[in-house]
Amino acid sequence: MAIDETTSGHKTFLYEAIAEEIADLIIQGTYRPGERILSVRQLSRQRKISITTALQVYLTLENRGLIEARPQSGYYVRSKLPTSLPEPNVSTPSPDPTQVSVRELVMMVMKDTLNPHLVQLGAAIPNPDLVATDKMNRIMASVARQTGTASSIYDLPPGCEELRIQIAQRAVAAGYNLMPNDIVTTSGCLEAFGLCLRAICRPGDTVATESPTYFGVLQVMESLELRALEIPTHPRDGISLSALRFALDHNPVRACLLMPNFNNPLGSLMPDDNKKELVQMLAARDIPLIEADDLGEIYFSGKRPTPAKAYDRKGLVMLCSSFSMVLSPGYRVGWAVPGRFKATVEWLKFTTNIATSTLPQLGIARFLASGGYDHHLRTIRRVYSRNIAQMSQAVMRHFPEGTRVTRPNGGFVLWVQLPEYADSLRLYRQALQAGITLAPGYMFSATDQYRNFIRLNAAFWSPDAERAIQRLGEMIVGMHQ
Amino acid sequence: MAIDETTSGHKTFLYEAIAEEIADLIIQGTYRPGERILSVRQLSRQRKISITTALQVYLTLENRGLIEARPQSGYYVRSKLPTSLPEPNVSTPSPDPTQVSVRELVMMVMKDTLNPHLVQLGAAIPNPDLVATDKMNRIMASVARQTGTASSIYDLPPGCEELRIQIAQRAVAAGYNLMPNDIVTTSGCLEAFGLCLRAICRPGDTVATESPTYFGVLQVMESLELRALEIPTHPRDGISLSALRFALDHNPVRACLLMPNFNNPLGSLMPDDNKKELVQMLAARDIPLIEADDLGEIYFSGKRPTPAKAYDRKGLVMLCSSFSMVLSPGYRVGWAVPGRFKATVEWLKFTTNIATSTLPQLGIARFLASGGYDHHLRTIRRVYSRNIAQMSQAVMRHFPEGTRVTRPNGGFVLWVQLPEYADSLRLYRQALQAGITLAPGYMFSATDQYRNFIRLNAAFWSPDAERAIQRLGEMIVGMHQ
Repeated sequence: MAIDETTSGHKTFLYEAIAEEIADLIIQGTYRPGERILSVRQLSRQRKISITTALQVYLTLENRGLIEARPQSGYYVRSKLPTSLPEPNVSTPSPDPTQVSVRELVMMVMKDTLNPHLVQLGAAIPNPDLVATDKMNRIMASVARQTGTASSIYDLPPGCEELRIQIAQRAVAAGYNLMPNDIVTTSGCLEAFGLCLRAICRPGDTVATESPTYFGVLQVMESLELRALEIPTHPRDGISLSALRFALDHNPVRACLLMPNFNNPLGSLMPDDNKKELVQMLAARDIPLIEADDLGEIYFSGKRPTPAKAYDRKGLVMLCSSFSMVLSPGYRVGWAVPGRFKATVEWLKFTTNIATSTLPQLGIARFLASGGYDHHLRTIRRVYSRNIAQMSQAVMRHFPEGTRVTRPNGGFVLWVQLPEYADSLRLYRQALQAGITLAPGYMFSATDQYRNFIRLNAAFWSPDAERAIQRLGEMIVGMHQ
Repeated sequence: MAIDETTSGHKTFLYEAIAEEIADLIIQGTYRPGERILSVRQLSRQRKISITTALQVYLTLENRGLIEARPQSGYYVRSKLPTSLPEPNVSTPSPDPTQVSVRELVMMVMKDTLNPHLVQLGAAIPNPDLVATDKMNRIMASVARQTGTASSIYDLPPGCEELRIQIAQRAVAAGYNLMPNDIVTTSGCLEAFGLCLRAICRPGDTVATESPTYFGVLQVMESLELRALEIPTHPRDGISLSALRFALDHNPVRACLLMPNFNNPLGSLMPDDNKKELVQMLAARDIPLIEADDLGEIYFSGKRPTPAKAYDRKGLVMLCSSFSMVLSPGYRVGWAVPGRFKATVEWLKFTTNIATSTLPQLGIARFLASGGYDHHLRTIRRVYSRNIAQMSQAVMRHFPEGTRVTRPNGGFVLWVQLPEYADSLRLYRQALQAGITLAPGYMFSATDQYRNFIRLNAAFWSPDAERAIQRLGEMIVGMHQ
């Protein structure tokens, strides 16, 4: 083992010195988060060191959390780079169920997505320039041409069989068994939430959710006159199981609606053991779990996280997902795996809109069958991972002291806790004036807890977006009187 | 004026004699319902009579209800030919509101549409061989290719502007003013019903409907835990206004859901004066009217019937429609004009599935803008009118004495009252064995009144369908023990 210099009590190995240099390059921004660095062989040649030493350099950087190895691809600067900003604390929502109401704000923020002049940091829509749009358009065109009268009949529940087969095959590849007949296709994930909630709840019932949670969930619950019971949730590991247990013991909870894989907005990922425990805890009480998994495919490292559905033995887990975050929300194609409630969900789907539009289902099924889908997924995982890292760095640079930010392992949003003096609704309004849209924290709770939080969409990361972050930072500072 | 012969007290004009001959040709089936007959000029030449006399021949036949003039097109055998079968009586539904439940039967009959081996006399789906499928497929393909990223964003409520402009323009052409901003696009007409009902009703509320009415309406109401109050309805003129007034005076009716233009299954058409009176009656009580108009474009003669919405002065009429019956149900594109409830309907649409699929909306908008739509409408009006007439004749020939059948002026279904001894569910099961599906009367009421009624879809009229009618006739006769 090569040793650069040795003084008593302080040895610096050669590989450590080189690692230190590279660490500086990363921290100073020469190598940007998500970018590939030199291969081991290149490093060895460049530094005239052995392959073994080059490997030690990278192991050291990996242990410091600065880079990560990706199989068959090399070493990359980690996207969740250790920053100087701490993560937000575990949430502490109100312990009582509350009536939801943030309607107008939600509709405003959503409609901002239709304004091409705004920098899109608001609604969690994927970047259409990334989402294989051309390829999908070609496939849709080809399906439309070849389909004859097939696309003009009702694709009655459970919906397009070609698509259900593809969904089932992907589930099996991700490590849990699913049959095409377990699946009901829907017009997006939100419709799946609504159908599942309607299958098990009546107006006035209480549903436990993570806090913060996706505003769409809260809106569906408000529209069905359900009460949201918001459970403390860790920005890294997801819902607190002890808090959930306490809540179940003290409230008439009719169902849980959770996002174990990359909660929106937190990006939290429940460890598999927690998922298992969650499923068992609910099964013991016969409480259905409605599980959102529409971001599960957008993981930044390791393998595709397992949904809680994989641990379901009683048919009580109702998995909901869609292609909206991964392909495009405009197709409005999602699905539910409703377990023992399948017949009811099918009937409710029929009474909601009879069936999902045929053509988009067929187009997506063909895309999945063609194999192009996995290639597409690899692209968006890489890009979103890098975007999240770069946006985090920008927030760190431009937002004032007291700011906290999540370190998500998947998805494409950041959840940012601003200093106490900042009001996210005021910031939203100021930002709009400056041509920027964002999602104020108010939208993610029914109990007004996140007034100094914002959710930022990193899917459209660009120099414009970076300037927008800087501008937001100035506005926040300006609120400190 | 030419007189053929004159005897005391009995004059037969030449034109009357010729009219009598032609009437025979029609009644005996040489000229089939919906077919064009000789032009006035051709008749004049053939019979060596003056143009004036030829015109008198046709006026006589028109007065007898045997033929009709179509502008710029000539004379046609009327589709609602006077038959020897009487129409069904005005319905006499139960005077009390009732809980709805015909779920399984509805799902079975709907799923029959996916079985290509059945003769499709059941669900009211249009004939895909007629519905401009090739043209629509080409347009969808072209939209998919040209659309770039436009089809991959949420087409948030109120939905696709291009389409709303086309819908508004068609309304103006049909004689009532509509602005694009009055319209919210939906995933079909059934979704529009659900959104409108949810905007104004709460579980347990009573909604007045026609009796019989489209089973989809009853299913939506069941799913929303609403109570259906079924109002007697005339097979020709639609809902009985006196019965409705009595019902409103004696029940806490929260809303009405009616189909003034070609009620499904009756095909009844409310006269304009009745529509006006209906709107006034409800406005005086501040009761919203949800109006289905999805068959309004499929009229057999005269001009497009006006929707009741045209008489709305208080924003209380919520018009619902779709392209499902006219173009294709597989696209799942419809709309609501929710009047004063528009903001609520938009929000409920958002909480149901965020938006309607973008591509089918754009495709249909382009088809409407291209002008191909009106040509297509003329085709289906002609074909369905002829089909209805021919199916009526077949029912007359093959069904036993005691059968009554509607004489619809639009749409593509017949409502058939069988002799008392016949049970429509038994007939449905026997028919399925013989490869025929139909819609048993049970589906069209929540109060079990139509056990000896069936609805027949004439959209697929063909020699096979005619043989199926004959077979059904034999089965019904066989039930008479």
